[in-house]
Amino acid sequence: MKTVTIADCISYSPEKMKKNNLFETEYMFTDLYCFEPGQEQKVHAHKNSDKIYIVQNGEGTFKVGVASTILKKGMATIARAGEPHGVKNHSNGQLTVLVIMAPKP
Amino acid sequence: MKTVTIADCISYSPEKMKKNNLFETEYMFTDLYCFEPGQEQKVHAHKNSDKIYIVQNGEGTFKVGVASTILKKGMATIARAGEPHGVKNHSNGQLTVLVIMAPKP
Repeated sequence: MKTVTIADCISYSPEKMKKNNLFETEYMFTDLYCFEPGQEQKVHAHKNSDKIYIVQNGEGTFKVGVASTILKKGMATIARAGEPHGVKNHSNGQLTVLVIMAPKP
Repeated sequence: MKTVTIADCISYSPEKMKKNNLFETEYMFTDLYCFEPGQEQKVHAHKNSDKIYIVQNGEGTFKVGVASTILKKGMATIARAGEPHGVKNHSNGQLTVLVIMAPKP
């Protein structure tokens, strides 16, 4: 039985947003994305996969489709298959986001 | 762009564990399971779907396969396709668990 303490998976890179994997199966993955201030995941899309974002700490600017909004700790959004999406840490603090994607692209 | 504040989705039932849906697509769903003390989701299995549990508040006893462990706020586990799994709120406080399942059964 694999258990994970999310706080233990927090790890940043000075160069770019760091992805830390929590769970991976043939159907999905669960990552913890860690953003230093100013770091981002540029807008992109996955034709056949949905992505859920759940902010664990800090705040970021999330783009989905043509919309853009600030999400803070305890807030979540979804980018459905085909929808362009991206995240930027616009703040002066660190940002951690739980990311679930299915099916695995 | 659909956004959700997880705390706003907390809702309990005195009769049984309550499932509150956050996101649903053809590929997956994301629910917030809310357990009053003593409430449980009995052990069951999904032949072709994985389930991720992420404890938001409180603590519960999680069974996956033949294992059983207590998970608290900020801890997570996975029940892979075919693995029997269940949750019981053994505590005296309320328990909320984020549940992601894919593919949608």
